[in-house]
Amino acid sequence: MIFSATVQVTLRPGISDPAGSTIERSLPTLGFDGVTDVRVGKLVTFTISATDQAAARAEVDDMCRRFLSNPVIEDASVSLEQAAQAPA
Amino acid sequence: MIFSATVQVTLRPGISDPAGSTIERSLPTLGFDGVTDVRVGKLVTFTISATDQAAARAEVDDMCRRFLSNPVIEDASVSLEQAAQAPA
Repeated sequence: MIFSATVQVTLRPGISDPAGSTIERSLPTLGFDGVTDVRVGKLVTFTISATDQAAARAEVDDMCRRFLSNPVIEDASVSLEQAAQAPA
Repeated sequence: MIFSATVQVTLRPGISDPAGSTIERSLPTLGFDGVTDVRVGKLVTFTISATDQAAARAEVDDMCRRFLSNPVIEDASVSLEQAAQAPA
């Protein structure tokens, strides 16, 4: 089975986010007011082939922990969706 | 009214994604097989204060176009959610 996976990697609360702070400081000079708490993260999308949804989720969770995020400072949230089946 | 906004900035289809390709090439050496079409994007989250949802969406769409993404090579998808109201 083929799944589309979306992994959102965000900095943990309390970890300083210089990119987010820079965006937040810049927005008022461009005329955008009322924006706060800007945080910048990464978005990784891919397709994964696995025997079932549980196997796909286990593999993606393992990838997140070992490769796609730094668990010390980042949280990863995974969403999986079954892709259209290839014709038999 | 206060809204939480999540902006997903992804490279348009057909635009080369060196970071994604590097991840895709590296995964098999770490024992993760069956992963294809890896694309890396940006995730920007913030809270925005606006009079209503339509005004918030218009401001965020404008921010995306002018500042958060490069519309020539990137697509931005916005999701808005009303945050808990401050007590009156």
